Amino acid sequence: MITQKELHISTQGRGAYDLSSQVQDAVAASGVETGLCNIFIRHTSASLMLCENADPAVMRDLETFMQHLVPDGDPMFTHTDEGPDDMPAHVRSILTNSDLNVPITDGRCALGTWQGIFLWEHRLAAHTRKILLTINGE
Amino acid sequence: MITQKELHISTQGRGAYDLSSQVQDAVAASGVETGLCNIFIRHTSASLMLCENADPAVMRDLETFMQHLVPDGDPMFTHTDEGPDDMPAHVRSILTNSDLNVPITDGRCALGTWQGIFLWEHRLAAHTRKILLTINGE
Amino acid sequence: MITQKELHISTQGRGAYDLSSQVQDAVAASGVETGLCNIFIRHTSASLMLCENADPAVMRDLETFMQHLVPDGDPMFTHTDEGPDDMPAHVRSILTNSDLNVPITDGRCALGTWQGIFLWEHRLAAHTRKILLTINGE
Repeated sequence: MITQKELHISTQGRGAYDLSSQVQDAVAASGVETGLCNIFIRHTSASLMLCENADPAVMRDLETFMQHLVPDGDPMFTHTDEGPDDMPAHVRSILTNSDLNVPITDGRCALGTWQGIFLWEHRLAAHTRKILLTINGE
Repeated sequence: MITQKELHISTQGRGAYDLSSQVQDAVAASGVETGLCNIFIRHTSASLMLCENADPAVMRDLETFMQHLVPDGDPMFTHTDEGPDDMPAHVRSILTNSDLNVPITDGRCALGTWQGIFLWEHRLAAHTRKILLTINGE
Repeated sequence: MITQKELHISTQGRGAYDLSSQVQDAVAASGVETGLCNIFIRHTSASLMLCENADPAVMRDLETFMQHLVPDGDPMFTHTDEGPDDMPAHVRSILTNSDLNVPITDGRCALGTWQGIFLWEHRLAAHTRKILLTINGE
């Protein structure tokens, strides 16, 4: 049994957005009890991650780390058509993930207690991001 | 045909632990000849990787690299509830992977000759890590 | 319905190689209309990524970034049997991906408009890389 559902997520610019509830709802609606949920982002300047879901400081620290590792406006970058955050957004996407594959057990994503599913918007401006869920199982 | 099995791996603190045999054994026990094995870690301070399995120096060098890239106790981090290795463990997890998806051919994970499946414990202290295998195929 | 196909890609050394057409052709040949395509590289010194497919400057900038982040010949590395690019190739592979999982919709990989599937060769010398496709769906 395979079903697909596309989520459209409106971001308010750079930052992490918790998708866990929307993914769990889609898994519940699919009727799959045992299987896998593939989460795929159809963009190259925003990405996906599984991350600690309890303390907002984790996301702030992740953002701080990434801004040090891949600074906006770094003169090493030549692909700057869309501004100083254009190429850093691609690099940040490559260093994280465009797809996640989460097991489904007893009709739910078998996340750990502290694990959430996040969209990480890397562009400074607001965007609408398309995320395709593919739920496969029995 | 979909089967799941949870591994409980006891780590002795930071370092890489080879899971290849345990994963291959679970695949063999499943009876799946052609398909995929999803390996999912239910934690955000330890991660998974496919890495060179022959020379222990590779793991030592990876550890050296990560300690330079994400130093324990870096003052940029504010999420320090569990100590100087708390936030670095989350960052290291984000930069590597929480899930791996390995093809199964002829009843075995189709790893390359030099490819092993590793748990990377990022915390300094010993932990028990839950890893869920989902084996899907025919 | 599960089918597998192995691609052998000849690289001319370090750089990105667009596999999108070959993957789309394999998906079309499989007859799967809705499902997933797993792309798996059987090596630890080359990797896979989903990246912007329009401006060649993106790949050049990614390469520049990685050469700064993981310099060839860095004296911190001790695994140097195959030369100054040996250990950096493993690190670069760990920081990107060995497997990608792309949804299939209407008989094609549901990539975003600007999204391509790339092999990233991290070794300086030419290699032949084995990439196994597993196409699963209905």
